[in-house]
Amino acid sequence: MRDFSSDVAHLSINSATLRKQLGLPEILEACARRGIRTVCPWRDQVAAAGLARIARQLKDAGLGLSGYCRGGFFPAVDAAGLARALDDNRRAVDEAKQLAAPCLVLVVGSLPGALGGQPTHNDISLARAQVLAGIAATLEYARSVAMPLAIEPLHPMQAADRACVNTLEHALDLCDALDQDRTGALGVAVDVYHTWWDPKLESQIARAGRDRLLAYHVCDWLLETRDLVNDRGMMGDGIIELKKIRQWLEAAGYAGPAEVEIFSERWWQRPAEDVLELCVARYQTVL
Amino acid sequence: MRDFSSDVAHLSINSATLRKQLGLPEILEACARRGIRTVCPWRDQVAAAGLARIARQLKDAGLGLSGYCRGGFFPAVDAAGLARALDDNRRAVDEAKQLAAPCLVLVVGSLPGALGGQPTHNDISLARAQVLAGIAATLEYARSVAMPLAIEPLHPMQAADRACVNTLEHALDLCDALDQDRTGALGVAVDVYHTWWDPKLESQIARAGRDRLLAYHVCDWLLETRDLVNDRGMMGDGIIELKKIRQWLEAAGYAGPAEVEIFSERWWQRPAEDVLELCVARYQTVL
Repeated sequence: MRDFSSDVAHLSINSATLRKQLGLPEILEACARRGIRTVCPWRDQVAAAGLARIARQLKDAGLGLSGYCRGGFFPAVDAAGLARALDDNRRAVDEAKQLAAPCLVLVVGSLPGALGGQPTHNDISLARAQVLAGIAATLEYARSVAMPLAIEPLHPMQAADRACVNTLEHALDLCDALDQDRTGALGVAVDVYHTWWDPKLESQIARAGRDRLLAYHVCDWLLETRDLVNDRGMMGDGIIELKKIRQWLEAAGYAGPAEVEIFSERWWQRPAEDVLELCVARYQTVL
Repeated sequence: MRDFSSDVAHLSINSATLRKQLGLPEILEACARRGIRTVCPWRDQVAAAGLARIARQLKDAGLGLSGYCRGGFFPAVDAAGLARALDDNRRAVDEAKQLAAPCLVLVVGSLPGALGGQPTHNDISLARAQVLAGIAATLEYARSVAMPLAIEPLHPMQAADRACVNTLEHALDLCDALDQDRTGALGVAVDVYHTWWDPKLESQIARAGRDRLLAYHVCDWLLETRDLVNDRGMMGDGIIELKKIRQWLEAAGYAGPAEVEIFSERWWQRPAEDVLELCVARYQTVL
């Protein structure tokens, strides 16, 4: 395994981790100041600051991306909605390109309306079919501009409202269906929070292999977890076997950054510099 | 599919559904009064009322069981703890026998101490190995008294603290390992709340077949879900495709009761008779 203990060479900070404390420009400044060289910005934070400004700031600061969050949310109630989702995903691909991201992360979506608490139907098979079609269409465009797509399986507790792809196996089945030649145009984002519980995680990481392992997100699973979305833990505060999973990823050929993505009402209440410092410390010790 | 619309012949009430309103004797009385002929009692509620008393009451009221909740929680930190768990499971088997249950439901446990918020380790592979050994040992005893064991895969959001078996596929792998001849001594409890999200649910139900499908629990998945344990929904209030899943089960040969098991701080606040009446109404319409 790579040695993470003495520097931050392989650390990336996902901008959601500090989203309630700072604007994106300030997050990038804080990372650069700490010597962190890689980040993953969220699209809404980029939009709030301005795409051109962020692209320039990244370049000036010498910051690279570990991914761009996010495309997806393909399912919709009608043809117009499906078309809007595809348009939006093409724009996300373009933005990822402009920011020189190595991949666009896809949170694929699920039952239309569910995120707002009002699902229009509960046919998850239909949602899954729309996801397959949506990725296929987006992939065609993404290939044309050489932007890899990374399907992120989400925890099954988010299956109704955020993503109907909930296991690495399912995500890799989609990859096999849409990119059977393993061209590198389609792969997966493995977030330990979403996948740690899966008894097939090790075998599916091996199945994915270097070609398909496009992103690796870290945080921790807390006992007790008080919220299904915004109660993720700092690495080392929970029960995820972080070193074991990194070992599996590196054994499969993954050599990219470890991206810290912590959605947490608790951590969002703490000063950004403290959180960042702790991310570095935990990256160097428990990851 | 069987017609559920005109009576309660295939309805069972799990005693957890009314546990905060009534003691077990009163729950059994309420069910009998409503014409419900099948129940599934929890072990702690039986202990509180007295095993002999409950056995007598069931017999006098002509109530049958759809299962007995529950055995399991096999993992432990040391040999003494593992032995205590096995002793406890043997007692659970004996109680199930005395109550004439068709099966003992197993919630297998996971990281020792995690349920109290203080896990002693985070090696889920070790927990899974202890679960396999624990079921094997319990099965030997259970076979000797002809009490089938039903492994209940729990939702992955409960993987750390309640059960490290989280998919039907994993539960069936255990069945295949420990009862390859499909003798009926070991099977699964399929709870729609824990399994609805699984893209392999249909195929794994078919794989299970009649021999392995020992119990079927129903409730619903709410949007939004506010608690990882005690915010289950009444059937029809959420997004689970209840009819579709029942169809899969019946196509695979399942002919037993539909057992309503709702852990819910919301429903526990409502009068028991109202909740029971709604369980009947929803059983007859949305299931």
